Amino acid sequence: MIDRLIEKIKKTDNPSVIGLDTDIAYLPEDVLEKIESPKTAADAILDFNIKIIDEIHTLIPAVKVQIAYYEQLGLEGMRAFAQTLAYAKSKDLIVIADAKRGDIGSTASAYSKAFFSGIQIKGRNYRDFDADFLTVNSYLGTDGIKPFVADCEKYDKGIFVLVKTSNASSGELQDLVTADGSTIYEKTGDLVSELGKSNIGKYGYSNVGAVVGATHPAQAERLRERLPNTFFLVPGYGAQGGTADDLKVCFDSKGLGAIVNSSRGILCAYKNQKYKGLDYVAAAKAAVIDMREDLKF
Amino acid sequence: MIDRLIEKIKKTDNPSVIGLDTDIAYLPEDVLEKIESPKTAADAILDFNIKIIDEIHTLIPAVKVQIAYYEQLGLEGMRAFAQTLAYAKSKDLIVIADAKRGDIGSTASAYSKAFFSGIQIKGRNYRDFDADFLTVNSYLGTDGIKPFVADCEKYDKGIFVLVKTSNASSGELQDLVTADGSTIYEKTGDLVSELGKSNIGKYGYSNVGAVVGATHPAQAERLRERLPNTFFLVPGYGAQGGTADDLKVCFDSKGLGAIVNSSRGILCAYKNQKYKGLDYVAAAKAAVIDMREDLKF
Repeated sequence: MIDRLIEKIKKTDNPSVIGLDTDIAYLPEDVLEKIESPKTAADAILDFNIKIIDEIHTLIPAVKVQIAYYEQLGLEGMRAFAQTLAYAKSKDLIVIADAKRGDIGSTASAYSKAFFSGIQIKGRNYRDFDADFLTVNSYLGTDGIKPFVADCEKYDKGIFVLVKTSNASSGELQDLVTADGSTIYEKTGDLVSELGKSNIGKYGYSNVGAVVGATHPAQAERLRERLPNTFFLVPGYGAQGGTADDLKVCFDSKGLGAIVNSSRGILCAYKNQKYKGLDYVAAAKAAVIDMREDLKF
Repeated sequence: MIDRLIEKIKKTDNPSVIGLDTDIAYLPEDVLEKIESPKTAADAILDFNIKIIDEIHTLIPAVKVQIAYYEQLGLEGMRAFAQTLAYAKSKDLIVIADAKRGDIGSTASAYSKAFFSGIQIKGRNYRDFDADFLTVNSYLGTDGIKPFVADCEKYDKGIFVLVKTSNASSGELQDLVTADGSTIYEKTGDLVSELGKSNIGKYGYSNVGAVVGATHPAQAERLRERLPNTFFLVPGYGAQGGTADDLKVCFDSKGLGAIVNSSRGILCAYKNQKYKGLDYVAAAKAAVIDMREDLKF
């Protein structure tokens, strides 16, 4: 799957992924007014996502869908989550489910079924949450990650494991220095790199990738060097404060090795002075094009 | 909520929580045969859960519902998850949603809405996944936990943050020793304890608890001493290999301070030689009573 992602990045000449973290609060006033229930809220969010996907799908390689914003709407939200994944896929986008799953082995296997393989009942396969990539939390160590890695190989999927996150307090645990002088995020990076060794594709990158925040350029630079076969999913660009200059260290000399996420910066572009006068669809498109230009180093 | 949990533990004289991690494979043969689709699978799991809850609800203080086993069935599974939480609540059980959520602040807030506060639309509150406690992952540091802590206070809820997990590879990151000589799980424990300070109830325990595995008695003992105000959710008893002897160090001198989870050991008791001849409901009840006796120190 990492090969497909890289080929889509090359084809669109764009290493960005748009985050459909569609909180209700991001919807335009006139849409918000009509929301009466979780069902109408979920419908409105799905409609918003579809209109944005229709406008930008040829410009970008992938979307990332943050499940929390759907889960907060309960079952109707989960339905809109499933439909958003399916719609993005129908438009030939690579779909990253941002669910940060992580649990002991048998439970990790169940999560892997949920997002990757689906479940087999009387010879038929069922899969509502159909993702190409899934974000995974590493706190439980490798036996919580291995079931996903096995399925990456078996079903041609990919994961991005949290290594160095973009948030302000990420350093509280991740930056702690261990006895041998390496930090926790470096140790985690090493685990991820090791787990990915059996999954390396034709561009030299593994289906087992890492989440590395744009807001910590010095750390990202060290990780790029340390993990030459690990593809990075880079959050933190735009709304969270990371600039193109900060994150260029995430890329290799060929301009590959990372995909940069923007969510609010695109979904809420219509609220930005810069795109004044444009509706949310046109503003999102303009912001996607600006981001693509900004990421040309 | 921690006070309510402790009062339920006292009332039932039982510090155990039953994990409704109901994988399809746990269902009896004759039930399995009738499953034709995710809908019938989800219905069968819900029915299994209800029958077990009906039999044991007066014997136990709480249930823990592992979301992964429902998520793997897609939307129908999520519906059965919501109904299981609601049914357990209707039987006056404390409900722990085991979802190990963890993300940056704004996303953590959305998760907290999903499981705790619900979402407000046109003056009405909607909440499909209605939990009393939620398990939370700490890898992102405190700003991913604080939104939950704020809601614990506001809505009288509780969380259990992953500190030292029960799985074999938990030590890969959690046992690493940092510059000042403490391990990562101790550092995480300290963060959890600090975050819980504003949430301490009348028994001296905080709404902000910790997950501490039964499979690592020496570490659990150190944590019990280090975190006197932190209540422990203890996985790993039974099927994962932890014994009552291993985990008694998780309790304080009054016999409080911990709640011990068993999932497969109860749900699949009917497959155990020890309970031969009993159906799954009677076997689960017998196993719950045996566990309660086993935990009397």
